Amino acid sequence: MNKPNIVILGAGYGGIMTTVKLQKKLGVNDANITLVNKHDYHYQTTWLHENAAGTLHHDRTRLPIKDVVDFSKVNFVQDTVVSIKPEEKKVALENGELDYDYLVVALGFEAATFGIPGLLDNAFTIGNINSARLIREHIEYNFAKYNNETEKKQERLNIVVGGGGFTGIEFVGELANRIPELCKEYDIDRNQVRIINVEAAPTVLPGFDPQLVEYAMNSLEARGVEFKVGAMLKECTPNSILIEKDDKQEEILTNTTVWAAGVRANSLVEESGLEVNRGKVEVQPDLRAPSHPDVFVVGDCALIMNEETGRPYPPTAQIAIQEAELAAKNLAILVGGGTHLESFEFMDRGTVASLGHDDAIGVVFGDKKLFGWSASVMKKMIDNRYLLKLGGLGLLLKKGKFNIFH
Amino acid sequence: MNKPNIVILGAGYGGIMTTVKLQKKLGVNDANITLVNKHDYHYQTTWLHENAAGTLHHDRTRLPIKDVVDFSKVNFVQDTVVSIKPEEKKVALENGELDYDYLVVALGFEAATFGIPGLLDNAFTIGNINSARLIREHIEYNFAKYNNETEKKQERLNIVVGGGGFTGIEFVGELANRIPELCKEYDIDRNQVRIINVEAAPTVLPGFDPQLVEYAMNSLEARGVEFKVGAMLKECTPNSILIEKDDKQEEILTNTTVWAAGVRANSLVEESGLEVNRGKVEVQPDLRAPSHPDVFVVGDCALIMNEETGRPYPPTAQIAIQEAELAAKNLAILVGGGTHLESFEFMDRGTVASLGHDDAIGVVFGDKKLFGWSASVMKKMIDNRYLLKLGGLGLLLKKGKFNIFH
Ligand SMILES: Cc1cc2nc3c(=O)[nH]c(=O)nc-3n(C[C@H](O)[C@H](O)[C@H](O)COP(=O)(O)OP(=O)(O)OC[C@H]3O[C@@H](n4cnc5c(N)ncnc54)[C@H](O)[C@@H]3O)c2cc1C
Ligand SMILES: Cc1cc2nc3c(=O)[nH]c(=O)nc-3n(C[C@H](O)[C@H](O)[C@H](O)COP(=O)(O)OP(=O)(O)OC[C@H]3O[C@@H](n4cnc5c(N)ncnc54)[C@H](O)[C@@H]3O)c2cc1C
Repeated sequence: MNKPNIVILGAGYGGIMTTVKLQKKLGVNDANITLVNKHDYHYQTTWLHENAAGTLHHDRTRLPIKDVVDFSKVNFVQDTVVSIKPEEKKVALENGELDYDYLVVALGFEAATFGIPGLLDNAFTIGNINSARLIREHIEYNFAKYNNETEKKQERLNIVVGGGGFTGIEFVGELANRIPELCKEYDIDRNQVRIINVEAAPTVLPGFDPQLVEYAMNSLEARGVEFKVGAMLKECTPNSILIEKDDKQEEILTNTTVWAAGVRANSLVEESGLEVNRGKVEVQPDLRAPSHPDVFVVGDCALIMNEETGRPYPPTAQIAIQEAELAAKNLAILVGGGTHLESFEFMDRGTVASLGHDDAIGVVFGDKKLFGWSASVMKKMIDNRYLLKLGGLGLLLKKGKFNIFH
Repeated sequence: MNKPNIVILGAGYGGIMTTVKLQKKLGVNDANITLVNKHDYHYQTTWLHENAAGTLHHDRTRLPIKDVVDFSKVNFVQDTVVSIKPEEKKVALENGELDYDYLVVALGFEAATFGIPGLLDNAFTIGNINSARLIREHIEYNFAKYNNETEKKQERLNIVVGGGGFTGIEFVGELANRIPELCKEYDIDRNQVRIINVEAAPTVLPGFDPQLVEYAMNSLEARGVEFKVGAMLKECTPNSILIEKDDKQEEILTNTTVWAAGVRANSLVEESGLEVNRGKVEVQPDLRAPSHPDVFVVGDCALIMNEETGRPYPPTAQIAIQEAELAAKNLAILVGGGTHLESFEFMDRGTVASLGHDDAIGVVFGDKKLFGWSASVMKKMIDNRYLLKLGGLGLLLKKGKFNIFH
C-alpha cells in the first residue's frame, strides 16, 4: 500500500501546529509528512511589532523549526512556495516541486495597501522577521543621522503608523516605550519626536469596548502618541504622507511610515485557482476547500463565517491554532481510512491588545474587561500557553515571557 | 586689579587636560577660566573607531565634562566656535562672543579628502561621537536591508576603509571582530561580507616595523580583511568606489566607504589669520603662536618639529596631552606675573595600534616590539593611564578598560 504524501505549506501558527500535532498522531509508516517554509525558523507573528519597535530582540520571537518538529518523522524543506496547483496536486517551489495527496495551506497574510499611491513602495510593513528588524534599524538610522546634519530634518524624527487597529495600536504602544531610550542613545530631545497614529474610522480599535478604547488612548497619549482619527491616508512618499480629514488635507513630514492598516491572505491562494471569497478560501466546517477535498486551509488564508454575527471571524493567531489542531485531527482520520471528519467550532478565549510591556487592554472569559498591568499579565499568559502547547515546558522556559514585574 | 580671562577652545584631549590642570594651579581669584565645547561631554577620540564598528558603546567613550571640570572654578560654555579673531582678542560663537586675555586653541582635527571626487559627500569619517555612531547604524541598516530585497545587493555587504594608517587599521580590526556578530544578527553568510582596506602606499602602517606590519596583516587577513596596497582611491559614489593600481582601474560596489586616510587641523585655525604651516600653527617651544604671545595652541592644531627626524611629530593624543600639561603650566606662570616659560619636550611613550579587542601591535620603551595579547593589554593600560590622570581613580574605575582576559 502506498503511504500518502501530506504537504504542509508555511510554518507559522497554523502550519507548525498542524505539523506538531500530526507527528504525534501519525507514525512514519502511516504517511510521508513534508513541511515547507521559507526559513528554517518559526516566528510568532504576534510579537513582531515588538521586534520592529526594538523593545524585544527578534531572536526571542523565533525558534528553530528543528526544536519542535521531529525531523526523523517530518521531512522539512526550506524553500519558497511559488505556486499551488490543486488540479495537478502539485506545489511549485523556487527550487523544486512537490506532489501531494493531502495539502495544508498555511501561508499566512501579506500587506494590503488598497492602491493608496506610494504606500507599497515607501511604507514599511510588519510582516516577518526581516521586515520587522528593518523597521527597527530604519528608525535608528534616522535618529543617528539627525545630529549629523546642520539643517535638522524633522522627517527623521516623525514616525507615522497607518492604522489604529490591533496591530497599529500594539506597535505604537511599543514605540512609546522605546522612543525615550532612542532619544538617550542619540542625544535627541524627546519632545522633538512625534509618534502619529492615523486611523480612518472615527475611533481607534473599532469593535473594542469604548471604555477600553478610552483607557488605551489615554495611556498612549500620556506617553506622547498623537492620534488622527477619521483621517484617511491619501499618499505616501519617501519623506512624507498626505492625510485627509473633514475635507482638509494635511502633509506630515516623515521618513518612516509603517502601514498596519490592512492585511490580506497570501496571494498565492488566489492565484492557485482555488475558489476564494475576499482572497481567502471559505472552508467547509471540516476545514477543507469546498472544491478540493484534499486541500485543507488554515489561518489567515482561510475564511470561516461567525454564524452569530454573520461576518467572518477576524484573522488571529488564536483561530489559526485552533484550526490547525482540527486539521491535524481530520487528516489523521483520512489517513486512517475514516470518512467522518469533525467540524470546526471556535472557542473564543478573549482578546488582549498590549500597549507596551506592562500595559494592555482586553476582554476575556466572555465579557470580563481587563486593563493595565493585569491585562498585560494575561497577554503574556496567552503567549506562554501557546509555547507550552507547541513545544512543552522546555520551550516555554526558553522562550516564554516571565517579566511580569517590570 | 583685573583678573585675566583665559578662554580654552575645545574639550578634547588637549583642551580638557589644559582645563583640569589649570583649575588645580589657579584659584578663582587668579583668573576667569572659560572652557568652550560643542557638546557637554568629552570623548576619547582614540576609541571612536570602536564605537563606529559597534564593538564598544559610545557612552563608554564619552564622559560629562562636569565630572572632571569643577564648574565652581571654570565657566563652561556649550557652544560652537565659528571664528577666532586674534587681532581683536575675541572668539565668535554660534550664540555669542567671548573676550580673552589668553587663549588656548585645542579644536582638534577634521577630515581631509584632498579633493578626491565624491569623497566629501559620500564617504563617512570617524570624527566624533555623532559620526561614529552613524557609521555603526549605517552598516547595520544595510545589513538589515539585505534580506528584504529580492535582488540581493552586494554593495550593502561590502565595507571599504580608505587608508591603511593607524586609524584605518584599528578600524578594520574592530570590524573584523564585529562582522560575524552582525551576520548572526541579520542572517547573512559571513563569506558574503567583504572588508576592504585601500592604501596608496606600498604597505599598510607605513613607518611601523615591518615585522609588526606583517603580524598585523596576517591577523587581519585571517579574520577576512582584504588589503589593496599601492592602490589609489580615485572616486567615491554613494554605492561604489573606483581605485587605481598599477595603472589598472577597479570599481568596487559599496554603500559604505569610511575615509580614514587623512586629517588636517580644524580649519578655524587657518581661517583665523594666525600664521600657519600645513594648516597648523607651528608653535614656539613654549607652545605659543609666534605672532601672538597670548595664544597657545595644543593638540592637532599645533605643529612641532621633531629635531631628530626633521619632520613634524604626528598628531596624537599622547602629544596633545603632554602639550596641554605644559600649556597649563606656562599659563599659570604668565598669570602669576612670570615671564620665563618652559619649553616643550616630547616624551615618547611608544605607539600601540589595536587590531581588535584582544590583539594589537606596538613599540614601547624606545624599541621593544610587542604584539598579540600583551600589546593589547599595553594599549588598555595607556588608555587607563589617561583616565587616571584626567579624573583620578573614580574615573578610571568608571570608564577604564579592564576586560583584558576576554
Ligand atoms: C504585529 C501583529 C500583531 C498581532 N497580534 C495578534 C494577537 O495579539 N493575537 C492574535 O490572535 N493575532 C494577532 N495577530 C494576527 C496573527 O499574527 C495572524 O492571524 C497569524 O499569524 C496567522 O497565522 P498563519 O499561520 O495563518 O500565518 P503566519 O503565522 O503568518 O505564518 C505564515 C508562514 O508562512 C511562511 N510563508 C509565507 N509565504 C511563504 C512562501 N511563499 N513560501 C514558504 N513559506 C511562506 C512564513 O514564513 C510564515 O512562517 C497579529 C498580527 C501582527 C502582524
Ligand atoms: C579613530 C582614531 C583613533 C586614534 N587612535 C589614536 C591612538 O591610539 N593614539 C594616539 O595617540 N592618537 C590616536 N588618534 C589621534 C588622536 O585622537 C588625536 O591626535 C587627538 O584626538 C587630538 O587631540 P585634540 O585635543 O587636538 O583634539 P580632539 O581630541 O579631537 O578634541 C577636539 C575637541 O574640540 C571640539 N570642537 C571641535 N570643533 C569645535 C567647534 N567649532 N566649537 C566647539 N568645539 C569644537 C570637539 O568636540 C572635541 O571635543 C586617533 C584618532 C582617531 C580618529
